[in-house]
Amino acid sequence: MLQLSFLIKLSFLNNTKTKINNLAIKTTMSSKESNLEELANEYKNRSPVAIIKFALENFDNIAISFSGAEDVVLIDMATKFKSDVKVFSLDTGRLHAETYRFIEQVREHYNIEIDVLSPDSESVQNLVREKGLYSFYNDGHKECCGIRKVIPLRQKLISLDAWVTGQRKDQSPDTRNDVPVVERDDAFSTIDKELIKFNPLSNWSSADVWEYIRSNDVPFNALHQQGYISIGCEPCTRAVLPNQHEREGRWWWEEATQKECGLHAGNVKQKS
Amino acid sequence: MLQLSFLIKLSFLNNTKTKINNLAIKTTMSSKESNLEELANEYKNRSPVAIIKFALENFDNIAISFSGAEDVVLIDMATKFKSDVKVFSLDTGRLHAETYRFIEQVREHYNIEIDVLSPDSESVQNLVREKGLYSFYNDGHKECCGIRKVIPLRQKLISLDAWVTGQRKDQSPDTRNDVPVVERDDAFSTIDKELIKFNPLSNWSSADVWEYIRSNDVPFNALHQQGYISIGCEPCTRAVLPNQHEREGRWWWEEATQKECGLHAGNVKQKS
Amino acid sequence: MLQLSFLIKLSFLNNTKTKINNLAIKTTMSSKESNLEELANEYKNRSPVAIIKFALENFDNIAISFSGAEDVVLIDMATKFKSDVKVFSLDTGRLHAETYRFIEQVREHYNIEIDVLSPDSESVQNLVREKGLYSFYNDGHKECCGIRKVIPLRQKLISLDAWVTGQRKDQSPDTRNDVPVVERDDAFSTIDKELIKFNPLSNWSSADVWEYIRSNDVPFNALHQQGYISIGCEPCTRAVLPNQHEREGRWWWEEATQKECGLHAGNVKQKS
Amino acid sequence: MLQLSFLIKLSFLNNTKTKINNLAIKTTMSSKESNLEELANEYKNRSPVAIIKFALENFDNIAISFSGAEDVVLIDMATKFKSDVKVFSLDTGRLHAETYRFIEQVREHYNIEIDVLSPDSESVQNLVREKGLYSFYNDGHKECCGIRKVIPLRQKLISLDAWVTGQRKDQSPDTRNDVPVVERDDAFSTIDKELIKFNPLSNWSSADVWEYIRSNDVPFNALHQQGYISIGCEPCTRAVLPNQHEREGRWWWEEATQKECGLHAGNVKQKS
Repeated sequence: MLQLSFLIKLSFLNNTKTKINNLAIKTTMSSKESNLEELANEYKNRSPVAIIKFALENFDNIAISFSGAEDVVLIDMATKFKSDVKVFSLDTGRLHAETYRFIEQVREHYNIEIDVLSPDSESVQNLVREKGLYSFYNDGHKECCGIRKVIPLRQKLISLDAWVTGQRKDQSPDTRNDVPVVERDDAFSTIDKELIKFNPLSNWSSADVWEYIRSNDVPFNALHQQGYISIGCEPCTRAVLPNQHEREGRWWWEEATQKECGLHAGNVKQKS
Repeated sequence: MLQLSFLIKLSFLNNTKTKINNLAIKTTMSSKESNLEELANEYKNRSPVAIIKFALENFDNIAISFSGAEDVVLIDMATKFKSDVKVFSLDTGRLHAETYRFIEQVREHYNIEIDVLSPDSESVQNLVREKGLYSFYNDGHKECCGIRKVIPLRQKLISLDAWVTGQRKDQSPDTRNDVPVVERDDAFSTIDKELIKFNPLSNWSSADVWEYIRSNDVPFNALHQQGYISIGCEPCTRAVLPNQHEREGRWWWEEATQKECGLHAGNVKQKS
Repeated sequence: MLQLSFLIKLSFLNNTKTKINNLAIKTTMSSKESNLEELANEYKNRSPVAIIKFALENFDNIAISFSGAEDVVLIDMATKFKSDVKVFSLDTGRLHAETYRFIEQVREHYNIEIDVLSPDSESVQNLVREKGLYSFYNDGHKECCGIRKVIPLRQKLISLDAWVTGQRKDQSPDTRNDVPVVERDDAFSTIDKELIKFNPLSNWSSADVWEYIRSNDVPFNALHQQGYISIGCEPCTRAVLPNQHEREGRWWWEEATQKECGLHAGNVKQKS
Repeated sequence: MLQLSFLIKLSFLNNTKTKINNLAIKTTMSSKESNLEELANEYKNRSPVAIIKFALENFDNIAISFSGAEDVVLIDMATKFKSDVKVFSLDTGRLHAETYRFIEQVREHYNIEIDVLSPDSESVQNLVREKGLYSFYNDGHKECCGIRKVIPLRQKLISLDAWVTGQRKDQSPDTRNDVPVVERDDAFSTIDKELIKFNPLSNWSSADVWEYIRSNDVPFNALHQQGYISIGCEPCTRAVLPNQHEREGRWWWEEATQKECGLHAGNVKQKS
C-alpha cells in the first residue's frame, strides 16, 4: 500500500525482492526518518555483504560510488550476486596515474561499466585561470573539491534513488563518529527527491577491509604499496608514516575537523 | 595601405612596431601565402628571440602555446621584452603530476597568467564510458587527443590571430622535416579567419634548447631529470634510453609516421 | 663486595652510578641467571629511558646496535643523558641508499661516532661467485645474513660486555613473544665471556615508538614514508600494505617462523 | 721466435690463434711499447668485435671488466665466440639496487661466472668511522674510490696479463681524448709484470653502443630508463638532463678534469 513508507515495506519484503517504486518514496519525512533509523538499527550488526545485498535488491536505481581506493571491496561484494552493478567514479582531472590505472583494472577485472564523471570544463578553467593549479594549499580544498567532485556528484545523484559508499567510522575520528549503515542523505536529497545512502563498511575497521582484500584476491591501487592508505587527488594525498592515522594523508595542511571533501558533508554538518 | 598584405607590411615595418589591424589579413590567399613564404624565408636564419619579438610586436591577438615541457623557453624569451604575454596550456586531465607542478611553477616564476584549457566534460565521459581510460592503446591516440587536446585548442585558436609554438624540425624526423618559422596554419585557419603560426624554435636542435635552458636558469619540468625528453600525457609518454630519439617516448605502440597529436596536423597532412 | 653478583649489586646500587668492574661479572652462572631474571622482572614495567639509563650507567663497555630504522629512538633517548654513547651499525653492503643516508643523518644530528661494520670481503666474494647476488631467494637468507650480518656482529660483540637492541615483542608474533628487557645473550655469550643484552623497547608497540618519534622530532629513514615499516637489506625488505604486519615486509618468501636474521637467534632457539 | 716481442708475433699470427706464452712478454720496454702502438694503430679502425676477438684469442689470462652499465656489450660480443669468458665487477658496497640486479641478470642471461670483488672491510670501516658515509662530497672521491674500487681492482689485475674495458673517448672529453684500442696499462703494470689493456669501444660513440644494445636485444641496467647514462656508485651518480654530457652525471660537485675514479688513472696522468 502506497501509504506505507518504503522502509517498512523494505524490512518486511526484504527477501521477496519486490522492487520499490518511486511512489513509495513519497511518504512523509518524519515516518521515513524513523523508519530509516529502524532499518539502520536492524542492519547495524549485519555484514557489509548483507547490507549491499539489501540495497541492491530493493533499489533499481542505485549505484556504487568508487573512489579508486579500498572501497573496491564494495564492487567485489556486489558483483558476486549481481552482474550489472552500476558504478561511478569522480575523475577530478587530478588523480594519480596509479588511480586511473586501477579504475581501468577494476573495470576489466569485474567486467563492469564504470561511469567516470568529469567536472565542468569552464568551472575548472575559471578557477585555474584565477588562482592557479594549487589554490587549495592557500585557501582550503573546499572550492576545488566543490568544482571537481561535489558538483559532478550532485548531478549524478539527482538521477539516483540511492547510492552506496565506502565510508567507515574509523576513517575520520573527528567527522565520522556516527556513520549509520543506511541513512537519508541530507547533503544531496532535494525538495523533490529523497536520496538514500548506504554505508555498508561503516562498522568495519581498516584492518577488516584489508583482510577482505587479501583473502579474496581483490585488486588494489598500487599506491597502497607505497605507504598510501586513504587515496584522493594527487596533490591532496600523501603517504603516511607507520601507525599514522590515514586521515593525516589527506589535506594535511588543514585542521582535522575540516577533512571532508563534501561528498559526505552531512558528517561535518552534524557536528556544528 | 590596406590593400597591401599584412605580410608585406610586416616585412617593411618590422622595426616600426606598427600593429596589424584585422583588415590587413583579408588579402587574397595567393598573395598572402607567397608573402608568408617570403617572411619565413627572411626569418629562417634569425634567432628564436628575433622571431618571437617580430610575432609579438606585430600581433596583438597572439598567444604562446605551452605544453609544460622545454617549450618554456618561448615564455622565457617573450617575457624578457613583454610582461603581459598571453600563454595557454592544454590540460588534458591526464598530465603527469610533475607537469601540473611545472605549469604552476612557470606561472609564478614569470608572473604570468596561463590559460589552462580543459576538455569538454561530456565528450570525455562518453569516450571513457564506452572505451575505458586507455582506449588509445587499442585503437590509436587520435580519438582521445581529438577530445582532450584538439577540440579545446581549436576553440582557443578561433579567438586568436596568431599563435606561437615550440615545434622543431628535429623533434620528429618523419613528420616535421619542414617546419617554417612562420606559416599559415592550415589545420586551424577557417574560411572566415586565417591563423598564423610561428615556430621560432624550428631550426634549433634539442641541444640548442637545453643549452638555453641551462645557461639562462630557466625552470624545467622535473620529468626531464628522469629520462623524459618529449612530454605529453602520462599514459602516452615514457622516458627514453640514452641516444634514443625523443619521439620514441611518445605513442610508442604506433607507427613513427603517425606520431602527431593533431596540434600540428598540417605536418602529417603535407606528407600524404 | 666482589662475591656478590653484579646484578644484585646493580639492583641495589642502581642510583649510585657505581660502575661494574669486570670481576663482578665472574660469578656463577646459576646465580647470575636468576639475578638477570629478577632484574628483568624489576624493569619490565619501567620506561625504555629508565632501562637505557640503567644499562649505560652500569656498563662502560656497552654499545647500542642501530639498524637504520626506528630503533633510532634508542639513540635519541641515550644521547639525552650521555654524550659519548657508543653506537654501531651493520653495513651489509646491500642496504637501501635511503638507509645509508639516514645513518649519516643520525651521525650528524646527534654528533656521535657510529661504528659501521663491513662484512669480510673474501667471504662475500666467495658466496657471490658461487651463488650470485640473490642466493637467499633460492636457499634462504641464513647464509647471506650469516656472512653479512652475524659474523661481523659476533666480532663486534666479543669486545663488549653488553649491548642495547631495539627489538620488541610486537615485531614478530612468532619468534619474539618473549623478549625480556634485559637478558643474558645466549647466542653471543662465549665460554670466556658473558654478554648482556638490553631490549628497552621490548614492551613498546610500534605505535608507541612512532608516537615517540613524532613527538620528539626524531629523524627517520625516508623509506618509512614509502610504506616500509621494518627495514633491513634492500633485496630482503619491501613495503607492506595497510594493516599488514611489518614482518611480512621481510623475507616474505620464507615461513613466518624463520624470520630472524641471526642477530636475535636466541628467540628462535627458544621456540624449538 | 722467443726474442720477438709478443706484439710483433701477434700482428703476424693474428689468425693462427697461437697463444702468447709468458716469455714473450719479457721483451724490452721500448720495443714493446712501439709494438703496442703499432698494434693499436693497426686495430684502431677495426670493429670492437675484432678487437675483443684478438684479445681473447691471444691472451688466456685475460678478463673483461664489467661496471654494470652499457659495457655489457663487451660481454655480449665476447660470449658469441667464447663461452667461458672471464668477467669481473667491482662491488663497492654502494651500488644502486638496480645495478646489483643487472649484474645478476647478466650472469644468468649469458650463463657466465662474474667475479664480484668486495673492498677490504677494515679499510672501509676505518674510512667510514673517521669521515662518515659521504666523505667524498667534502674532500673528493679519490679516497673512497681508492678503497672501494682501485685497491680491489689492483689486486685482481695482478693476477691477469690483460684486461678489457669499456672506456670510450667520447665519455669524458677532458680526460679520455686519447684512448687507444690497446695499450700498456701504465697505472697497473708493475715492475714484475706488464699489463695490457684493451679498449675495444674506444672509438664508438654512445650512440653506437646503444644502437648495438637495442639491435641485439642486449639486457641493460634499469637505471638507463630513468635518465642515467654513465653509472657508478649510487651517491656519486645521477641522471642527466636531455643533451647533458654523461660525465655531468658523475662526481658533479668536482671539476670536470678530475672525473676519473682511478680505474683509468693513466688518462688523467697523461694530461698533467
